[in-house]
Amino acid sequence: MKAIVDLCVVPIGVGVSVSKYVAACQQVLEAAGLDFTLHAYGTNIEGDWDAVFAAVKKCHETVHELGAPRITTTLKVGTRTDRAQSMADKIKSVRHKLDS
Amino acid sequence: MKAIVDLCVVPIGVGVSVSKYVAACQQVLEAAGLDFTLHAYGTNIEGDWDAVFAAVKKCHETVHELGAPRITTTLKVGTRTDRAQSMADKIKSVRHKLDS
Amino acid sequence: MKAIVDLCVVPIGVGVSVSKYVAACQQVLEAAGLDFTLHAYGTNIEGDWDAVFAAVKKCHETVHELGAPRITTTLKVGTRTDRAQSMADKIKSVRHKLDS
Amino acid sequence: MKAIVDLCVVPIGVGVSVSKYVAACQQVLEAAGLDFTLHAYGTNIEGDWDAVFAAVKKCHETVHELGAPRITTTLKVGTRTDRAQSMADKIKSVRHKLDS
Repeated sequence: MKAIVDLCVVPIGVGVSVSKYVAACQQVLEAAGLDFTLHAYGTNIEGDWDAVFAAVKKCHETVHELGAPRITTTLKVGTRTDRAQSMADKIKSVRHKLDS
Repeated sequence: MKAIVDLCVVPIGVGVSVSKYVAACQQVLEAAGLDFTLHAYGTNIEGDWDAVFAAVKKCHETVHELGAPRITTTLKVGTRTDRAQSMADKIKSVRHKLDS
Repeated sequence: MKAIVDLCVVPIGVGVSVSKYVAACQQVLEAAGLDFTLHAYGTNIEGDWDAVFAAVKKCHETVHELGAPRITTTLKVGTRTDRAQSMADKIKSVRHKLDS
Repeated sequence: MKAIVDLCVVPIGVGVSVSKYVAACQQVLEAAGLDFTLHAYGTNIEGDWDAVFAAVKKCHETVHELGAPRITTTLKVGTRTDRAQSMADKIKSVRHKLDS
């Protein structure tokens, strides 16, 4: 089962700057070989369900190892069985509607 | 790693009534032996990370099998390494502040 | 327009314990005269769109005043035009499916 | 109070294709004069709190007018009082950590 996920990991108890932890998660996703795109309030990820969620777990483990005692993460998870759809397809579909 | 999760599964393409699918997810969580509590906009779940996310995957599979061609799920995921905290502890902690 | 909302306010930069801030938000919702129910990962709120979102803004203002320099909030917002549905109705509908 | 918001509007009861409704929301944001960026699982928006939430309400109204009887929206909302930070700043900050 393929999933498109939006991941936003928020470390708590490490002060106001969280970019170090977000950067560490980007490296986890890179190492996992997943397709992902950072945006201003999270990261879009595309891949096999198990691979994506193994990486999400690894993000939590990594952020804890970096010193965050508490993490709250928000995830959106999309799956569909009617047809294949990539992250790029989703954006293209909206843009197409705007252009027509 | 223990996690407290808030899960909201939304089937798309099956009309406006989604309670049948939410009920099926409750049964998945029950069968998984997880602690969970339904609220008006999702379900709180408490358990080992792997057990919780195996159940979340099973929810997607089950809702697709019931006929939903597309699903969008919102999850909040909390982990902490500083101390153990249950769902009941979280609520008690807020109520204690309100009573004091 | 009536809305059912799930609100989870997370103060950042104030350490690991956030219950004081969540309690302050409960008091904001109470003062606003809204129907709300605390759960382990947020608060369900029911009311007129403008009243609910005025309260959400007031929560951010209050949590900043209490000393949090940064806040990240997750909201789910449900509206429907086909029929009236309360928070209690949503839970009852799922429970009914489970009992049948 | 300035806010950075991630908005994901999901119409329910209109079939599996939702891009028409997402496109309509893009036009609402454009008409409101807000800074926004579409991504594969939502739209980042930056602006004054009241302007952003007026647009979010307008999105719900518009999507209902287009025929969706039910909507479930997920929002992330960030505010901070310690310093000004744009959407571009947030991304730059993470990229900087990755490059160093």
